[in-house]
Amino acid sequence: MCTAATYQTKDFYMGRTLDYEFSYGEEITITPRYYPFHFKHGAVLEDHYAMIGMAHVAENYPLYYEGANEKGLAMAGLNFVGNAAYGHPMDDKDNIAVYELIPWLLGQCASVADVRKLVKTLNIVDTVFSPQFPNAQLHWLIADANEAITMECMKDGLHIYDNPVGVMTNNPPFDKQLFRLNDYMALSPKQPSNNFSDKLDLGSYSRGMGALGLPGDLSSSSRFVRAAFVKMNALSGNSEVESVNQVFHIMGSVEQQRGCCEVSEGHYEITIYTACMNVSKGIYYYTTYTNHQITAVDMQKENLNGEMLVRYPMLQEEKILIQN
Amino acid sequence: MCTAATYQTKDFYMGRTLDYEFSYGEEITITPRYYPFHFKHGAVLEDHYAMIGMAHVAENYPLYYEGANEKGLAMAGLNFVGNAAYGHPMDDKDNIAVYELIPWLLGQCASVADVRKLVKTLNIVDTVFSPQFPNAQLHWLIADANEAITMECMKDGLHIYDNPVGVMTNNPPFDKQLFRLNDYMALSPKQPSNNFSDKLDLGSYSRGMGALGLPGDLSSSSRFVRAAFVKMNALSGNSEVESVNQVFHIMGSVEQQRGCCEVSEGHYEITIYTACMNVSKGIYYYTTYTNHQITAVDMQKENLNGEMLVRYPMLQEEKILIQN
Amino acid sequence: MCTAATYQTKDFYMGRTLDYEFSYGEEITITPRYYPFHFKHGAVLEDHYAMIGMAHVAENYPLYYEGANEKGLAMAGLNFVGNAAYGHPMDDKDNIAVYELIPWLLGQCASVADVRKLVKTLNIVDTVFSPQFPNAQLHWLIADANEAITMECMKDGLHIYDNPVGVMTNNPPFDKQLFRLNDYMALSPKQPSNNFSDKLDLGSYSRGMGALGLPGDLSSSSRFVRAAFVKMNALSGNSEVESVNQVFHIMGSVEQQRGCCEVSEGHYEITIYTACMNVSKGIYYYTTYTNHQITAVDMQKENLNGEMLVRYPMLQEEKILIQN
Amino acid sequence: MCTAATYQTKDFYMGRTLDYEFSYGEEITITPRYYPFHFKHGAVLEDHYAMIGMAHVAENYPLYYEGANEKGLAMAGLNFVGNAAYGHPMDDKDNIAVYELIPWLLGQCASVADVRKLVKTLNIVDTVFSPQFPNAQLHWLIADANEAITMECMKDGLHIYDNPVGVMTNNPPFDKQLFRLNDYMALSPKQPSNNFSDKLDLGSYSRGMGALGLPGDLSSSSRFVRAAFVKMNALSGNSEVESVNQVFHIMGSVEQQRGCCEVSEGHYEITIYTACMNVSKGIYYYTTYTNHQITAVDMQKENLNGEMLVRYPMLQEEKILIQN
Repeated sequence: MCTAATYQTKDFYMGRTLDYEFSYGEEITITPRYYPFHFKHGAVLEDHYAMIGMAHVAENYPLYYEGANEKGLAMAGLNFVGNAAYGHPMDDKDNIAVYELIPWLLGQCASVADVRKLVKTLNIVDTVFSPQFPNAQLHWLIADANEAITMECMKDGLHIYDNPVGVMTNNPPFDKQLFRLNDYMALSPKQPSNNFSDKLDLGSYSRGMGALGLPGDLSSSSRFVRAAFVKMNALSGNSEVESVNQVFHIMGSVEQQRGCCEVSEGHYEITIYTACMNVSKGIYYYTTYTNHQITAVDMQKENLNGEMLVRYPMLQEEKILIQN
Repeated sequence: MCTAATYQTKDFYMGRTLDYEFSYGEEITITPRYYPFHFKHGAVLEDHYAMIGMAHVAENYPLYYEGANEKGLAMAGLNFVGNAAYGHPMDDKDNIAVYELIPWLLGQCASVADVRKLVKTLNIVDTVFSPQFPNAQLHWLIADANEAITMECMKDGLHIYDNPVGVMTNNPPFDKQLFRLNDYMALSPKQPSNNFSDKLDLGSYSRGMGALGLPGDLSSSSRFVRAAFVKMNALSGNSEVESVNQVFHIMGSVEQQRGCCEVSEGHYEITIYTACMNVSKGIYYYTTYTNHQITAVDMQKENLNGEMLVRYPMLQEEKILIQN
Repeated sequence: MCTAATYQTKDFYMGRTLDYEFSYGEEITITPRYYPFHFKHGAVLEDHYAMIGMAHVAENYPLYYEGANEKGLAMAGLNFVGNAAYGHPMDDKDNIAVYELIPWLLGQCASVADVRKLVKTLNIVDTVFSPQFPNAQLHWLIADANEAITMECMKDGLHIYDNPVGVMTNNPPFDKQLFRLNDYMALSPKQPSNNFSDKLDLGSYSRGMGALGLPGDLSSSSRFVRAAFVKMNALSGNSEVESVNQVFHIMGSVEQQRGCCEVSEGHYEITIYTACMNVSKGIYYYTTYTNHQITAVDMQKENLNGEMLVRYPMLQEEKILIQN
Repeated sequence: MCTAATYQTKDFYMGRTLDYEFSYGEEITITPRYYPFHFKHGAVLEDHYAMIGMAHVAENYPLYYEGANEKGLAMAGLNFVGNAAYGHPMDDKDNIAVYELIPWLLGQCASVADVRKLVKTLNIVDTVFSPQFPNAQLHWLIADANEAITMECMKDGLHIYDNPVGVMTNNPPFDKQLFRLNDYMALSPKQPSNNFSDKLDLGSYSRGMGALGLPGDLSSSSRFVRAAFVKMNALSGNSEVESVNQVFHIMGSVEQQRGCCEVSEGHYEITIYTACMNVSKGIYYYTTYTNHQITAVDMQKENLNGEMLVRYPMLQEEKILIQN
């Protein structure tokens, strides 16, 4: 499954892991302003905000997993299997297929406030990109430097939740996830006090005991609590390199190691890639399971007034620096 | 605090994290065969096995944190504060100061079997390297491709424990740590069955629910359980790069993120560096908190018949690959 | 707070604990068929099913906490503070005040199926019994031998949930509570297997390790999981005494001991009384915090065709049998 | 298995549960001062302190499970399977068989201080009462109004541990059990604070959330933590009835319900009986799984200068008070 988290220093960042048992073939993809989006149910965006993100490109179309636009809005789609439900086209709605949602919103919205307005007429539909690409069941974390929201389309309609923690994983629905944090409110980066009994001589035998009770497994609800704790307590300097570095450490706390999550006999989910987007500047940083070094693609180095997708392969080979 | 773990594919590896709130200044240090060790209480090793590891070098002496020798034996010292107890020199013993223990053993022992013999006359003493360097309170993970042991010197004497899991952290003593794993025996990388009640329709709403209950905090006992689960279930290919890659993923599961473990007002323990030693070949790989890229130093590229320490600085600057 | 649970052997039972820091003065109260209920907003029941339960009687009106009627339907009201929301009278509805709900439903419904029909026109209103008696914020467990439901009236309307586990506590809303059970599906009354690693010699050092992870605190969500586990796995003979005995053991698993739940400086919530209703036969059994002996009041021993409440004081003095 | 706990108000109390899948046939048994104890390996007590407790009486010999003597010393034997180890008779020792230990100590010691002295020459031996009665593997909680100790005889000798919590269960050895309490030091009867993040609006949705993390299963280590928390925080009045009442509530927190602990196919461990001894006065109170009413036997009502055991059957029939 996946985890996403926002982070704010001088700039605004969004991190995400993509956890799965195989890859569809992803590329870091920049969509410049004049690449035309012809949406399945008629809408057209001939010009729009430029965006960068990870995408599977099929028939020259960027199927984005997550992305950020030039205005400082970011968005990530994460699995929401069994809860996501999309409908059929309706006459008086903006009918947007699931796979079109990231371009639709990042192309037009400069902020979460814009998103809130645009989704009022939104109808997310189950139309497929092609018979070979059934739609994923997704929900979305959408954030700018001011706020974050979670968007979930379920049988009972579209839910827009304020997301004060700026973290999202997968099932269950976001209101259940957020509520569960109350159970962990006593956890702390500081050492615990002895509340058990003042007649017993209890004490800390290790550093880090203030967060005893934090879940360590890879299920979506445990990753949510753990990522929330790490993100809310994370500290770093304000510089670009310090911020990016820390986002990768935050995301590392919910990484999936090969062998620890068996999804079928002999098949294991792993963190295929981890991304950190500098949303303020349009820089996409990533590591992969097979390569620990951070690699960066900067949207501003490309001609954003173009019409053609700019694509960079995901570098996957472990780049080890040989010191002697 | 710290975590260490062994890993076996085609070669034998030992990983470790060093967690602390500041660094003493470490260097990757190779001690060639003819560097003379003059131990404080009289013992001398004019020639010995060559070794590589991370050390603080003071007055040309390598204060090793962990290391591996050319025979395939590795050893790591980890904090054991409050439990470690060292004695005074005794007449009929090999009196070795705490800080001398790694060279003493790696210099003379080709295997854990050799260690078991040599420690029969060992007396670990509290003699300091110099007034500026009080001894750390440590215990040790010692391992070769065949077996691992934990060595703990406490008030009631020297304990040598078989370590079937090949993992060690800090407090409490190792027998307590190992016993605690029984409480987690039901955890699995596979999805759980419904044992609660066959009259209730319970099911997995997320992948990875088989390990619900695995602790996620940074205390030493929680890191022990988590590292043990990840290490025992970890899977990778046999090649050097796949093995090294996986060791860093294993160690990543117990990494300490800045902000999550406050040790005093405004001071935080972090994973200063993470190491992976190919013990079979004498290659030392490491990352630092500030640099995600793996860096390597290979003992075999140096003249192991020398008399002088070979030292490489720990590279700490984030090496980001700029892809465009 | 409180816990309620159903239990089925030859007869059908409902148990409940009432947890609070003080008592309003309760009596075991039988309402015979011709006691007239004049509901605040106009409805009248001149004759109805007879019922028995625990009630605070004010101005000759039985303010029931829980009860069972002569047809085999039982109902318990439990605290639902912060989530319960009641409305104002509406023209085309059966406007029933919170405190009237138990008589309204037990008086007219012979089964949960009847309840499902009757509540279609129900509007639970916030009208108070008297200025001295502000309404409690409640939700209800309603059950017969065939099925159980949870009824919750919240800001977004009236929710009727199937309750397959037959257990209810307090916050959060029932759908969240029921969903949480999925996290505990691996728990079992049987000993666990070693799923952690087949290379480690892990084993059970105690009986009862299959349910490690079951929460033991007194919060409502922990009591829900614990009571669900105990109830779903509980076993007893079919006789009246064996069944009643076992219901008190089930409820004992969520009892609140004085001192363990401080609600304000020096004030502690305790299990004021525990009830077990034989719903099939109309017998009300109870213990109190101060008296371990079970006391019974049998509805069938009274004239159910009367017009007057039949009231028995709650016996609270510890009845110790002196054997010598 | 079993749990024992001390409790102090005006008088001193010891409670215990006996958990097992069947009963050997127990009786409340008073041993007066002149009942002669002829120990297997030669020691004889022609006169001794009188004692009361639960025993299986075989060949007119009281095989005590727990007991208290007229001087205010109490002692309970609890299962310690796999860890207990007893030896062979030795020349210069008081060789006492396992089953003789309670009479040996309660017969001669007026206090824990006396016990500490007497055990200096004690050698607990594995001699059986008879071929039909193999020795149980036990350890003991021994306490007076001033202090409590745990006594464990293992392969490495006899261990006497100070027991500041006054609670004991079964495996693992007591030092491990006591150490584990450090992991629960943050638990409290009070509501938790929000330490997770001051930027999140987390709060208590239920009373009793301060002890979230307290284990609720029936394993010996979980019962130890739970009984310790309940006992250390328990509050009651000072009177006899209030004190006895509260001890039964404390012990109720670790009761084993039928169906929740399967020890072999279709066989379940339950709390066969629960005892509360007023150690100061020599009164033995008990309930059984099948009878919730407290029954009492008072040693002082018997002739303590006798030579014959005084035996009372364990009353097991549920005594329900019929109120109408």
